[in-house]
Amino acid sequence: MSILVVGSVALDSIQTPFGKVREALGGSATYFSVAARLYHQPVHLVAVVGTDFPQAHLDSFRSFNIDIAGLQVAEGQTFRWSGRYDYDLNTAETLDTQLNVFASFHPQLPEEYRDAEYVFLANIDPVLQLEVLSQIRQPKLTVLDTMNYWISYRKDALTEAISAVDIVLINEAEARQYANTFSLVRAANKILSLGPRALVVKKGEYGAMLFSRDLDPRQGCFFAPAYPLEKINDPTGAGDSFAGGFMGHLAASKYAPPQAKGQMADVIRRAIVHGSVVASYTVEDFGVNRLRTMTLEDVTNRYSDFKRFTYFEPVCPVADGCERLAAMGGWTR
Amino acid sequence: MSILVVGSVALDSIQTPFGKVREALGGSATYFSVAARLYHQPVHLVAVVGTDFPQAHLDSFRSFNIDIAGLQVAEGQTFRWSGRYDYDLNTAETLDTQLNVFASFHPQLPEEYRDAEYVFLANIDPVLQLEVLSQIRQPKLTVLDTMNYWISYRKDALTEAISAVDIVLINEAEARQYANTFSLVRAANKILSLGPRALVVKKGEYGAMLFSRDLDPRQGCFFAPAYPLEKINDPTGAGDSFAGGFMGHLAASKYAPPQAKGQMADVIRRAIVHGSVVASYTVEDFGVNRLRTMTLEDVTNRYSDFKRFTYFEPVCPVADGCERLAAMGGWTR
Repeated sequence: MSILVVGSVALDSIQTPFGKVREALGGSATYFSVAARLYHQPVHLVAVVGTDFPQAHLDSFRSFNIDIAGLQVAEGQTFRWSGRYDYDLNTAETLDTQLNVFASFHPQLPEEYRDAEYVFLANIDPVLQLEVLSQIRQPKLTVLDTMNYWISYRKDALTEAISAVDIVLINEAEARQYANTFSLVRAANKILSLGPRALVVKKGEYGAMLFSRDLDPRQGCFFAPAYPLEKINDPTGAGDSFAGGFMGHLAASKYAPPQAKGQMADVIRRAIVHGSVVASYTVEDFGVNRLRTMTLEDVTNRYSDFKRFTYFEPVCPVADGCERLAAMGGWTR
Repeated sequence: MSILVVGSVALDSIQTPFGKVREALGGSATYFSVAARLYHQPVHLVAVVGTDFPQAHLDSFRSFNIDIAGLQVAEGQTFRWSGRYDYDLNTAETLDTQLNVFASFHPQLPEEYRDAEYVFLANIDPVLQLEVLSQIRQPKLTVLDTMNYWISYRKDALTEAISAVDIVLINEAEARQYANTFSLVRAANKILSLGPRALVVKKGEYGAMLFSRDLDPRQGCFFAPAYPLEKINDPTGAGDSFAGGFMGHLAASKYAPPQAKGQMADVIRRAIVHGSVVASYTVEDFGVNRLRTMTLEDVTNRYSDFKRFTYFEPVCPVADGCERLAAMGGWTR
């Protein structure tokens, strides 16, 4: 039982009102894997770096127990991204992007990776996402992320990739852009009509939302807020570490569609809360600094907080549970 | 036991991408009272209109069983507002505001209104909100709303009014503006430090959030999503009808602070869900059209939907309830 991620490993230079870092370990596959390995191992990583990639960062991956047998080292420079956030931390201003070796990246899965069961296709060219899918033998669950660029310039390939995966995980503006409508409900229906079983819409500080095709539309809808933090230092990697917590929980729960309807909904709902918890830690510090030190106990604490944040009435696990408890004298409305 | 609202009654001309209305019945006190009367009566309304105010609108108030003994009719024209929404329905563009008789409005409470127990000070000059408070004998619960204009030009009076009420109910941008910080958690702490027991932050399509001073910060935080509608026709009045459902539920529940800690939190949480339900109906049609026809059965249906939207794990009403139910054979994790 293994998790596989294909995405970017990058050197990030980030400025926010609260500090900055230069050439820190970043990239979608990095954030995802550092989050997911908390929940389940092994996590196999497929990406490319240049010959300039610091040994210290390679050592970091090993210290996290992330399998980097699939991390290609190509002649040239590593992918570099440089960005800045203002006090409104919702959107990054990209200052510079140097694709370098990432520009000619073609994922080649080591033989043992082809049996991976939980596959996350991070935000890369959907043509490459399809190449990865064709190399996987029998995945239990496939999830993809994307971005506005691919919606604008690779829509056909992206549509094919969306049709091929179990779950699509994208941000709100991208869902609207892909479906060409302001209504998120309509956008969700359009994306789900292509084939995926579920759509998870990331809304940044407004949390995340699930739309599911397996259930009737009312039942299949779920919201998780974002954790109310007093201070966010660096929002970079929130979405990818969300995906890591989400997939990590699903792998740890041995989730595999199809299952009974209610069952599916509940574990996916809980996975979304786990994603939100992990993302809330990520943004507390720059780069992967907070993810380095966090533990499953940290996860458990905030997971409990989320129950309180959304609680307004008891929901009993059995249909007449509240009544039976009341009859036992344990509780009265 | 009565509900009192002081605010505006207006003639609204509204354009959205989905239609338009001219000189429709509007205003904060209107939306509030049409929503609140579903839950609890009597609802006393204090506002001012001009001699041009249509008899049909007065008849509407009477058909809703809203007590308009406190609706002053002044020589001159009624307050008129004209606005337009684009596909992003989150913000209105004001095309024209004619205060007319509203400019010299001073709320005078009829004698029988001074015993009102649930008092909503809708978005008016905080100087007038304070005038109203001074006329009320012994309210059980006072709630105020405000807007950016008063934060900019009447900050001292607004601060005094905030300090005098039990609950502040404002939108997200206004909370940030008032506290002069981007962090909503810090803004909430600042507002709560002035005295109110709770702050309800309205976030439009992103729902609503409660911060409470009576409980420890973790416990006191609550989120309710907005109802996921496929189509919104006119967002006007969403906030004021939210307030109507919120106060209506609190009045119907005979809520009065102080109560035991958990007790308070739960009824306020449920009141926020009721506010969200009512607002979700309001925006489905222009003006108060949908509020005219909706019933408490409609409320119950969407209230149940909200439970599903936020459910991810059973929450038992007694500490070991899940274990006891499991022992009874009714349920296993």
